Amino acid sequence: MHSANVGFAGLGAMGRGMARNLHRAGLLRAVWNRTRSGADALAEELGVAVATDPALASECEVIVLCVSADADVLAVVDALLPGLRPGALVIDCSTVSADTAREAARRVAAHGGEFLDAPVSGGVEGARDGTLAIMAGGSDAAFASAQHALQAMGRTITHFGPNGSGQAAKATNQIMCAGIIQAVAEAMAFAKAQGLPLPQLIETLGKGAGSSWYFVNRAPNIVRDSFPAGFRVRLHEKDLRICREMAGRFGVELPLVETTLAHYQQLIAQGHGDEDISVLFRLKDALFTPAAAGGAPRGSA
Amino acid sequence: MHSANVGFAGLGAMGRGMARNLHRAGLLRAVWNRTRSGADALAEELGVAVATDPALASECEVIVLCVSADADVLAVVDALLPGLRPGALVIDCSTVSADTAREAARRVAAHGGEFLDAPVSGGVEGARDGTLAIMAGGSDAAFASAQHALQAMGRTITHFGPNGSGQAAKATNQIMCAGIIQAVAEAMAFAKAQGLPLPQLIETLGKGAGSSWYFVNRAPNIVRDSFPAGFRVRLHEKDLRICREMAGRFGVELPLVETTLAHYQQLIAQGHGDEDISVLFRLKDALFTPAAAGGAPRGSA
Repeated sequence: MHSANVGFAGLGAMGRGMARNLHRAGLLRAVWNRTRSGADALAEELGVAVATDPALASECEVIVLCVSADADVLAVVDALLPGLRPGALVIDCSTVSADTAREAARRVAAHGGEFLDAPVSGGVEGARDGTLAIMAGGSDAAFASAQHALQAMGRTITHFGPNGSGQAAKATNQIMCAGIIQAVAEAMAFAKAQGLPLPQLIETLGKGAGSSWYFVNRAPNIVRDSFPAGFRVRLHEKDLRICREMAGRFGVELPLVETTLAHYQQLIAQGHGDEDISVLFRLKDALFTPAAAGGAPRGSA
Repeated sequence: MHSANVGFAGLGAMGRGMARNLHRAGLLRAVWNRTRSGADALAEELGVAVATDPALASECEVIVLCVSADADVLAVVDALLPGLRPGALVIDCSTVSADTAREAARRVAAHGGEFLDAPVSGGVEGARDGTLAIMAGGSDAAFASAQHALQAMGRTITHFGPNGSGQAAKATNQIMCAGIIQAVAEAMAFAKAQGLPLPQLIETLGKGAGSSWYFVNRAPNIVRDSFPAGFRVRLHEKDLRICREMAGRFGVELPLVETTLAHYQQLIAQGHGDEDISVLFRLKDALFTPAAAGGAPRGSA
């Protein structure tokens, strides 16, 4: 049994669920959030302390981060450093680039701590239910020390290698999602134009070799013409910009990444940024019915 | 119990499995194949008659076709017509365009018969095991008359609407496969360049929201660097040309279809036409390692 030695920084929609699961496991000692009010509400609910960030570091042996962007990870890490205990472990569950993970790891190591990049997938539901997939990068020792915290938050926990490799695995997943949502959206727009009964089509093709998690779980959004998040266009767009940057290090432009970024930027401009990525269907559908969709030129999506 | 009143035309790798399952169900009366030797061998194995095609039509109430191309379907249908019994049912399990299905249906109807387009998915294994997904288009009466034959060959049998809608459903599936193989190939090439351990990656991401049948079942080909068919590049290329034609009726070029056709034509030229479509990984991998792959220009795939 571990004592309550975990601090949590970043209480967004994901972070709140993860912090609650750390609390349920008897591990959570303190929370911190950029906007104080978010931290106060959760701290009151759970009966844990609200910390200023350096204090979080000095009170906890393990600090879990879950923030939005590369710059946020480095800013929070820098704020934690002055109070960091010797041998403390920083676990970053944000989705950022592998370079940012390696840079954060260097800064933490320079203060005598250890760093694990541990981005997650499974969405808000997975964070709430403690069923996240967690992709970890860091030393064997850091991965071992993180076990109690990771197991409180996730179900499939994999160690891929040194710092950065957790982020690389997550980026791989996000590239795959880009191709799959292209596949589902383009195929369903074609099917609709052919006059096929879409619910039966989803039922049948969902059992076949062309099936995917997204098709089975999100193609019904297309039938309902309603795309509640889900995986927001805005967040996948952010992740794909990370993938673009990581591929760019090899001088490579990845076609699915580039195409999907262009489509998402169009969708965000049209006000669909906070809908599920299955809303990409609208752009593909507009190829077949340009008038109904406000005159988008054929062949453009 | 139905009597042995089914004739089968087209004894390729798929057709042989399907004919054997019709025989097991006590339904197969006669077989025909373009090359006589193929028919002789199976007829001897099963103890059924080898027919010339008009004779096949006059002896059987139900005739199942499984051939390669649009022109083949129309040629076999034309050969069957003179001997067609009144009320006979022609079930075409080939993958061709919806237009070809509707034209074949018109010709059969003009001779007093009924036609069902009933393309299948599930591959050679599905044909052998009788577990195909069958996507049917035709009248309710034709679909009802076809039940005994369809149930002998497949497991998931769906009636999508009038003639052509079975082919439209199959085309939808093939478009989805194009996007998914693009997703798997591009993501795995990225992961390899990042130095990730691919077997663990497949294990982990295969359980997540980015997963698909193809990723779970065919990404291991990439680890083994061996791409046995499977779903041959050459056959998917043929199917995507049908999809291109069907979308072209709406004045639409579908991006995934066009991109994948270009990639497949490159793979066929390089001698990969009879490998599984997961061999698309090679083109994506060449983006990251152009020298090793014979200097393919970066950004081209």
